[in-house]
Amino acid sequence: MEIIQSNNYPIYFDNSIVELVNFIKQSGYSRFFIFTDENTGKYCLPVVKEKIDQFDNYDIIEINAGEESKNIDFCIGVWKMLIDFGADRNSLIINLGGGVISDMGGFVASTYKRGIDFVHIPTTLLSQVDASVGGKTGIDIEGIKNIVGTFAQPKAVFMINEFLKTLPPRQILSGLAELLKHGLIADAQLWADLKQNDLTQPSPELIHRSVKIKNKIVLEDPTEKNIRKALNFGHTIGHAVETYSLLNDQVPLSHGEAIAIGMICEAWLSNKNADLPDADLQDITATLTTLYPKYQLHENNFDALFKIMQMDKKNLNGKINCTFLTRIGQFSIDNICTEEELYNSLRYYAAL
Amino acid sequence: MEIIQSNNYPIYFDNSIVELVNFIKQSGYSRFFIFTDENTGKYCLPVVKEKIDQFDNYDIIEINAGEESKNIDFCIGVWKMLIDFGADRNSLIINLGGGVISDMGGFVASTYKRGIDFVHIPTTLLSQVDASVGGKTGIDIEGIKNIVGTFAQPKAVFMINEFLKTLPPRQILSGLAELLKHGLIADAQLWADLKQNDLTQPSPELIHRSVKIKNKIVLEDPTEKNIRKALNFGHTIGHAVETYSLLNDQVPLSHGEAIAIGMICEAWLSNKNADLPDADLQDITATLTTLYPKYQLHENNFDALFKIMQMDKKNLNGKINCTFLTRIGQFSIDNICTEEELYNSLRYYAAL
Ligand SMILES: NC(=O)c1ccc[n+]([C@@H]2O[C@H](COP(=O)([O-])OP(=O)(O)OC[C@H]3O[C@@H](n4cnc5c(N)ncnc54)[C@H](O)[C@@H]3O)[C@@H](O)[C@H]2O)c1
Ligand SMILES: NC(=O)c1ccc[n+]([C@@H]2O[C@H](COP(=O)([O-])OP(=O)(O)OC[C@H]3O[C@@H](n4cnc5c(N)ncnc54)[C@H](O)[C@@H]3O)[C@@H](O)[C@H]2O)c1
Ligand SMILES: [Zn+2]
Ligand SMILES: [Zn+2]
Repeated sequence: MEIIQSNNYPIYFDNSIVELVNFIKQSGYSRFFIFTDENTGKYCLPVVKEKIDQFDNYDIIEINAGEESKNIDFCIGVWKMLIDFGADRNSLIINLGGGVISDMGGFVASTYKRGIDFVHIPTTLLSQVDASVGGKTGIDIEGIKNIVGTFAQPKAVFMINEFLKTLPPRQILSGLAELLKHGLIADAQLWADLKQNDLTQPSPELIHRSVKIKNKIVLEDPTEKNIRKALNFGHTIGHAVETYSLLNDQVPLSHGEAIAIGMICEAWLSNKNADLPDADLQDITATLTTLYPKYQLHENNFDALFKIMQMDKKNLNGKINCTFLTRIGQFSIDNICTEEELYNSLRYYAAL
Repeated sequence: MEIIQSNNYPIYFDNSIVELVNFIKQSGYSRFFIFTDENTGKYCLPVVKEKIDQFDNYDIIEINAGEESKNIDFCIGVWKMLIDFGADRNSLIINLGGGVISDMGGFVASTYKRGIDFVHIPTTLLSQVDASVGGKTGIDIEGIKNIVGTFAQPKAVFMINEFLKTLPPRQILSGLAELLKHGLIADAQLWADLKQNDLTQPSPELIHRSVKIKNKIVLEDPTEKNIRKALNFGHTIGHAVETYSLLNDQVPLSHGEAIAIGMICEAWLSNKNADLPDADLQDITATLTTLYPKYQLHENNFDALFKIMQMDKKNLNGKINCTFLTRIGQFSIDNICTEEELYNSLRYYAAL
């Protein structure tokens, strides 16, 4: 498959490990560091290690798995390890993992000695189609997601489809929401093809098409001033549902599960306010409710959800901003929604 | 005096407080934050506050004075205060202080929500002629200076000469070393004029000329790949002396006092290796020994100093890299020095 050119760096889909080895050989780094978590250390690192054991100038830095690690204390730990390992300006960090690893490894690299090089090997579906593309790094502080971070581009991204095989089904479903979103906002054909495919292990070809869409959008708007907001479809309500679930449920929704709910609600809003055809709304609703388990939303949770939306950093001055679909494959940004409309969209989902 | 244009931002020298007020009025920030330390909170903040009390959308964030504050714990504290104060993407940070405040405030701003705007009001001579110009931010970790940071440009710099009046004489001397350095590497006339002037309170005009030199160099090489190394004159040995003194002396040398020693030693090396005329070496030595107190360096400290140089991040693979003068006002970068030459240069200083 075609190499995708992003912001001055290539995204490889074929022979990615060979490409990685070539990259290391050609670039002459003094040292390199593989940044993993417990799971990617177990499932993915052996595959990579086999090919790079020809090099002797590298170390492995492993952290605990999960969003709880994406904080400043772990960053400090990694910075200190880099110091202890003697990482100089000519060092490279290889982020081998999901979005937690790429967000945090990217942040650590982009600030160590004012910026050393890094590359991503995204190992979750979410990080392949979303987190590894677009040059955003970030960590959480006091539970506020990505409140600290940088815009920083990797030197390359290496996609390795086989890593998805060990990924738990709920993690696949989480990434799938972004893949579906890319079809909904920009490519009706991708949406149609996704519906025809077995999505328990999305094919490299579908991932490639999805990455191409995200890449096109972020290249047009690297620092999120305007059209990058297209990627927020489903996220105004979805983020609120995600946060709400995190605060209230024993087994909280994953990001993608919440975004799937958000996309149904925001499709309903699009139908009411932006002429999204009825048939499109029905198609979106039917497809997403088939793929994702129903979440119990009740009228008496709506106030809490609305409060969370008001606090979201994307919503300035308490106004709730949504990205709409005008039809499947087309979006419109910067739509202000009223409280009543938002409540009604939640009612639509709750009544399904 | 002429406004100096840096990397897409202006450096004001005249009516700076009026310019600051205009800047705030015109830019429409949702909130702004004044970042100070105990001393600048006491000596400089009242002057600024008087003019900006027409605004009601700002808060003050004050930290302890001194290099010990330039660490990640204080950054976390400031990030949390920004969160608590409701700083959004459209907020501004005003760094009111010396190099500690501008380095750390710049780092915090350039990473909060992936970068919000900041400006500097440098209040020490060192920060006026050096730290506030060039777009480097940084903090220390485990005592390693500026090991974490970013390249990030302020939106403007406002120079207020009267702030230097409350600065202790040793702080003036510390900044003066960089001012003298700018003459030595790039402007023989500035060097000559500095020698004629009362340097206990350098005039705005001398500071303006000094900033112009640093600015010209950093504009040519924003991320320190080549000619920016000119600014390292005196710093290879000077940094080692500074670190050594910090580890061993009850009252350690200031940065500038150490750099003055480094400039004498590196002028000696320049004389031996880069044809710096004998008269220039004598001029530099006489001027700097008159301005700065003699520091006791002994033969049996030299090994320790050399070890510190080997560990310096500027020196790759254990090779010691120096910037030389070919004459007063002209430099040459990337000169490798042998151990013996370095020891001899230290002997030259010790024997003065
Ligand atoms: N930078 C961006 O533009 C961007 C975009 C979207 C999401 N994100 C961030 O990404 C993060 C979520 O990403 P994620 O879902 O990949 O999280 P993650 O990195 O925590 O991975 C999810 C889980 O899967 C495990 N795992 C990873 N690869 C595996 C594999 N191949 N086999 C088995 N287990 C594996 C991980 O250890 C973890 O337990 C969030 O922090 C989010 O903020 C960033
Ligand atoms: N970013 C860069 O390019 C760059 C360049 C050079 C130095 N630096 C950094 O700058 C720092 C040193 O700068 P500095 O010497 O200004 O340190 P500083 O900020 O600690 O100031 C020195 C002392 O003077 C006090 N002070 C500041 N303004 C005052 C005033 N007007 N009146 C009375 N007291 C005042 C401070 O409270 C402090 O105690 C170091 O951390 C160094 O790494 C950065
Ligand atoms: Zn998302
Ligand atoms: Zn200096």
